[in-house]
Amino acid sequence: MVKGEGVWVWDAEGRKYLDCYNNVPHVGHCHPKVVETIAKQAATLNTHTRYPHAGILDYVEALTDTFDDPLNTAIMTCTGSEANDIALRMAQAVTGNMGVIASDQTYHGNTVAVSQLSRTNPPPGGFWDHMAFVPAPDSYRPLGGEGGMAHAQAFADEVQKQIDALAERGHGLSCLIICPYFANEGFPDLEQGWLAPAIEKVRAAGGIVIADEVQPGFGRVGSHFWGHQRAGFTPDVVTLGKPMANGHPVGGVVTSMEVMSAFRNSFKYFNTFGGNPVSAAAAMATLKVVQEEGLQQNALEVGNYAREGLRKLAETHACIGDVRGSGLFFGAEMVLDRATKEPAAAFVKRVANGMRQKGVLLNFLGVNYNALKIRPPMCVSRENADLMLETLDQVLTETPLEP
Amino acid sequence: MVKGEGVWVWDAEGRKYLDCYNNVPHVGHCHPKVVETIAKQAATLNTHTRYPHAGILDYVEALTDTFDDPLNTAIMTCTGSEANDIALRMAQAVTGNMGVIASDQTYHGNTVAVSQLSRTNPPPGGFWDHMAFVPAPDSYRPLGGEGGMAHAQAFADEVQKQIDALAERGHGLSCLIICPYFANEGFPDLEQGWLAPAIEKVRAAGGIVIADEVQPGFGRVGSHFWGHQRAGFTPDVVTLGKPMANGHPVGGVVTSMEVMSAFRNSFKYFNTFGGNPVSAAAAMATLKVVQEEGLQQNALEVGNYAREGLRKLAETHACIGDVRGSGLFFGAEMVLDRATKEPAAAFVKRVANGMRQKGVLLNFLGVNYNALKIRPPMCVSRENADLMLETLDQVLTETPLEP
Repeated sequence: MVKGEGVWVWDAEGRKYLDCYNNVPHVGHCHPKVVETIAKQAATLNTHTRYPHAGILDYVEALTDTFDDPLNTAIMTCTGSEANDIALRMAQAVTGNMGVIASDQTYHGNTVAVSQLSRTNPPPGGFWDHMAFVPAPDSYRPLGGEGGMAHAQAFADEVQKQIDALAERGHGLSCLIICPYFANEGFPDLEQGWLAPAIEKVRAAGGIVIADEVQPGFGRVGSHFWGHQRAGFTPDVVTLGKPMANGHPVGGVVTSMEVMSAFRNSFKYFNTFGGNPVSAAAAMATLKVVQEEGLQQNALEVGNYAREGLRKLAETHACIGDVRGSGLFFGAEMVLDRATKEPAAAFVKRVANGMRQKGVLLNFLGVNYNALKIRPPMCVSRENADLMLETLDQVLTETPLEP
Repeated sequence: MVKGEGVWVWDAEGRKYLDCYNNVPHVGHCHPKVVETIAKQAATLNTHTRYPHAGILDYVEALTDTFDDPLNTAIMTCTGSEANDIALRMAQAVTGNMGVIASDQTYHGNTVAVSQLSRTNPPPGGFWDHMAFVPAPDSYRPLGGEGGMAHAQAFADEVQKQIDALAERGHGLSCLIICPYFANEGFPDLEQGWLAPAIEKVRAAGGIVIADEVQPGFGRVGSHFWGHQRAGFTPDVVTLGKPMANGHPVGGVVTSMEVMSAFRNSFKYFNTFGGNPVSAAAAMATLKVVQEEGLQQNALEVGNYAREGLRKLAETHACIGDVRGSGLFFGAEMVLDRATKEPAAAFVKRVANGMRQKGVLLNFLGVNYNALKIRPPMCVSRENADLMLETLDQVLTETPLEP
């Protein structure tokens, strides 16, 4: 790739692609307001936070204004991995415990500690004894059966099972860490409040809840600014990353004064580049564009429109087993047979490659790696969605539905 | 602070300071070539390395050209902490062992894993059983006594003691991780080859050597481009950070193809922002400025000139016990009494504050926190050094030498 603008990228041969995958250029590739802000601040001052600068204060105020009480303070980092690495220590500081529960199909980042959260990539040397995993929620094949809150209760029971297992191994509960949208798990359809029974178990055991908003945050889910607001709960700690500064390396941890004080009193922490004047300015410009250009509303509208289009495609393409998602993070689960729901993982990979060959970038993910993952920059239009849908119609027609 | 240019920064009240402390704006605050490069690339494309881009390849080639064989490949990260977090896993991948030896006065970064390397900030919950520490080298009060290589042999013996202690606790040796300049330890004067006996012990025990070049690297030590070249050894893994892109969040790990392959075969690793087109361009611009503007040579010359000035000040100021350093990372150890070498830690803190009040920024560090730390941007001139020395002369005259 050599060039980007809005929802478009160009490769070195001059081919143009509709980018329906990239959540890093959140407000569009090379948004002029973000670019101008970076250029201006880089020419004025860029140093670290040992040299006090107002930019980080202004940004943290603007950022925490988008959160519910008591989430009103933050640490700025350079990556979502660093944010989760801090969040685990905040949980340790608050609870005095080490036991961590995560989903068995998640990814929270790349540090030594955060890599321990990925059941799908077992770390050489093995998992730490205080790590525990629960089955990822799957609304298409719900644990506990269809209907009502049986699935939610089954998930809560799995959480309790791991709380007990940790206790048996001598570990008190520190936290449950989840993506509130379960993005890597294939963004299952879960009604608001679905997580309440599980969170109740966590808090009853003295643990806290960390919401990793790296994927659903900053308005992407359309209906709400944050994934946890859509899910209907207030986490103790929220971690941020990828879309936060439209590609500039910025992450963050948002929490309450109480949790922050516990962390600051227990751990020394300084991040050289975190919240530097240029990083803070880039993050502020990105947040302002989301708010001023109404991109959350656009995510809601274009997302609904595109999902409607996917449902129409399902009428003629039997491979589409389930259309899911919210705002501009959505997709369709591909199956070899709608009755058996047998995952079409190899097929969806061929579809993703076929789309790329026709100039539309998207990807796949999920518990069975068979869900199409569509996640364009937040400025995507209905016309762009039409192009994606028409191309998908062609590719699904041309690609044999085979294992 | 609101503005920076070259070696100068301005605060919100318009006061101008000579920055003799900041190693992040390596080639000078807001260097126009770096600023222009960032602005241009940010306006063209900024995405992550799942979208291939030539910038990271060009940079890694230019970077590894400055290293000796077999250090010819690299991973780009966003911070030095991330780099050290990877380096520890490289050592694990190569050796199959977990035992890590570090100096007892060092700092290598802020992740959960890397925080385990800081004896000076004990992590809540305690050190992992496989961490071990050796006394920091101190050329002013050498372990093993003055003269010849007795100090070096004493350090090697301490390393061997920790290799044996790790083995007794059931841990094979993974690595020795050091700043080759022992920057936080107070940059002791150690002759070239001083580390050879210790490195021999490490390699005999099957371990590898990680050189953390976050502080001495990119020409700062004047005589060489890298601290380990000045120290006279070739590490297995080199980690980079702060100065790498003049303030843009960039770090990196340089190693051999052999170590890289072992790491890539054992660990999955992806860094969203690491080596993105803007980060790679900012790093490339910074490297080019260092090379094209002869900043390593400037570091050598101005550093020698400034140290000569410090030695002259020592003739009239009894508090200066030892003048040390190389290139543009130097300082003076302050003592209450030259005969007893009693550290003047509270005094040096007052001196650093006095300097700030007179418009010159510097800091202090070292085993006893009594060494003045002078580390200006690489474009500092003799005239700037004169201003720093004249101001220091005044402050030392006005500050009573008291505990």
